[in-house]
Amino acid sequence: MLKCTACGREYSLRKPYQRCECGEPLELELFKSVPGIGRRVWERFSGFFPFELKPELSLGEGDTPLIKAKKLSKELGVKLYLKNETTNPTWSFKDRGTYLGIHRALQLGFKKIGTVSTGNMAASVAAYGARAELETYILVSSTIAKEKLKALAPYGARVIKVHGDYGELYYKSLEIGQRKDIYFINSDDPFRIEGYKSISFEIIEEITPDYVVVPTSSGGLFRGIVKGFLELKESGLIEKLPRFVTVQAEGCSPICKAFNNGKEKIERFENPHTIAHAIENPYPPSGNVVLRRLRELDGLCVAVRDEEILNAQKELGREGLFVQPASATGISAIRKLREKGIIEENSRIVSILTGAGLKTLSHVEAPKAKECDLASFDDCFR
Amino acid sequence: MLKCTACGREYSLRKPYQRCECGEPLELELFKSVPGIGRRVWERFSGFFPFELKPELSLGEGDTPLIKAKKLSKELGVKLYLKNETTNPTWSFKDRGTYLGIHRALQLGFKKIGTVSTGNMAASVAAYGARAELETYILVSSTIAKEKLKALAPYGARVIKVHGDYGELYYKSLEIGQRKDIYFINSDDPFRIEGYKSISFEIIEEITPDYVVVPTSSGGLFRGIVKGFLELKESGLIEKLPRFVTVQAEGCSPICKAFNNGKEKIERFENPHTIAHAIENPYPPSGNVVLRRLRELDGLCVAVRDEEILNAQKELGREGLFVQPASATGISAIRKLREKGIIEENSRIVSILTGAGLKTLSHVEAPKAKECDLASFDDCFR
Repeated sequence: MLKCTACGREYSLRKPYQRCECGEPLELELFKSVPGIGRRVWERFSGFFPFELKPELSLGEGDTPLIKAKKLSKELGVKLYLKNETTNPTWSFKDRGTYLGIHRALQLGFKKIGTVSTGNMAASVAAYGARAELETYILVSSTIAKEKLKALAPYGARVIKVHGDYGELYYKSLEIGQRKDIYFINSDDPFRIEGYKSISFEIIEEITPDYVVVPTSSGGLFRGIVKGFLELKESGLIEKLPRFVTVQAEGCSPICKAFNNGKEKIERFENPHTIAHAIENPYPPSGNVVLRRLRELDGLCVAVRDEEILNAQKELGREGLFVQPASATGISAIRKLREKGIIEENSRIVSILTGAGLKTLSHVEAPKAKECDLASFDDCFR
Repeated sequence: MLKCTACGREYSLRKPYQRCECGEPLELELFKSVPGIGRRVWERFSGFFPFELKPELSLGEGDTPLIKAKKLSKELGVKLYLKNETTNPTWSFKDRGTYLGIHRALQLGFKKIGTVSTGNMAASVAAYGARAELETYILVSSTIAKEKLKALAPYGARVIKVHGDYGELYYKSLEIGQRKDIYFINSDDPFRIEGYKSISFEIIEEITPDYVVVPTSSGGLFRGIVKGFLELKESGLIEKLPRFVTVQAEGCSPICKAFNNGKEKIERFENPHTIAHAIENPYPPSGNVVLRRLRELDGLCVAVRDEEILNAQKELGREGLFVQPASATGISAIRKLREKGIIEENSRIVSILTGAGLKTLSHVEAPKAKECDLASFDDCFR
């Protein structure tokens, strides 16, 4: 049964419902189960997923490294762990959600799938669509950067550049999907949420965090991680929830704005502008759910500036991890919360590194390189 | 004890020996052990590695997916498995070798490390050097592409552009390393080989291949994979070795040329030119070892053309995997060997996908995109 995250109205699983009549997103009820053994998170936590997951649809997503950040832990006076989602098959966390989304599309008998994305999700859906041999439609903004288009090329999906309001495209795609029999696995599809839960399961296998910090755009990832922890608690596998931190870029922070102003609903963020393009969604389709969860669970919402983001990207590089700007926002948020005394010393914090830095190489400056000659090679090391 | 792969001369492990006086590379003896349990390949096969591996130096390398290629298996009439090394922390197989190499540098007391590379290895050594807080020197060719330089930026290594013969730089760097106390973890360092063995261990945990196909440049990866299988056999964990296939690009195939002409030693390949830059080494430092192994173990060497490589890159995309051109060479080689009847129908084949396609995005053409308008959205799907 799918249930509205706002009004509680229920919807059958037999049809491709994704959002409630009231406008808010649907979600599956909490799963209660016990983990087992297995090589992959999908096997170990099989009782927590809505269907049996098929290895032949998988590209090897999940079971990503949790890396203790040595320098940043010391500097920030905390125990900082980085969940490195850049090692997924298309180098972002989206693959976990797409994997579940593809199962859902096939379960309902769809032969065509699609998504609306400017980057990570586009590549992910294109890849998994190819794997499952489904006709795959990728709707991108007409202003998409060339490097992002190129990253889609090998998968062979049908790419459509849409002129017009990009935010509206999310809703339009769901409508047209119904008419044209295309299952749109958009950012906060209820089954994406089920996939993202696996991040929480993997974290808890290694550590019990006090804080989990989530770069947030549509709200899908945040919802998935929260649902994962709620299920772990319901199942008696953890005693208390971590405190959840939503991070947004200051130049596009509709959720933090509403949260900090005590609003009940998010409003469209005017003139969004940030270097963290992967989280630049001015009107996040799960924004209101995130807002409610933050309130219910005593969460935090932090907006960070572009210069802080770029600095954090560098700091993560010094830990050996090259992430896209959106993924670095968590570090900037933790720093702010430490400075304000909100996060206590020695707290165990997990920050989610959502996607690979290679995806946004055009923004990166080449390092200063020393030039020297092989004929006078010793001089290179002076 | 390190032993010369050619003349058998022995060298102490107490000093940073990497090559024999005779000019050929050194290698550790075969390890015999039994696998145990553990989350990571480094734990499960701990008895096969030359030292205790430290989690704090790790970035989560290894334990990559082995993906059954559905369409290609059918088309080629074989059971094709793809070992997806693009999900490593710096998105290539190099990370496995760098992880071991860093241990070696620290074991010998070095405070500085370095490498000579135009791409994958540069990023890998820069990342692990940052992780271990070592002063890290990355020597690149003065003609390096900007996208490759950019991919190094966040790690904060010292990048040196060297003018002069790039092949010579490999040997020059080892010399200067001795004088300047820099441990150069170059392409076929004996401890890199130890890291690459882990690929064989992971393969054997999932399937018993008839063939293992390895894109080959310096020869380090090939040597590592062969050594891994030899150790599995010596340890009684497999009954027979797979047949090993070295793949090179036709435009730079010094090993295949020597192998197919019955030569005992490789010769410098004149005017190398291929789209598969990651394997464009005209005078591979482990070329002669590869040649000997191919002879001893009844291996095969196949050279493939650029157009075949680009076609294979697309075919892998259709399986959901976006690789750099060098990583696609294996598919072209398998096709050739099937056409010639050398690989039998239904053979179980593993092809190594060495590095991510995102690394060579500048060579990729943007996909043809349909343009349409949100106002007449239905027309997009006609």
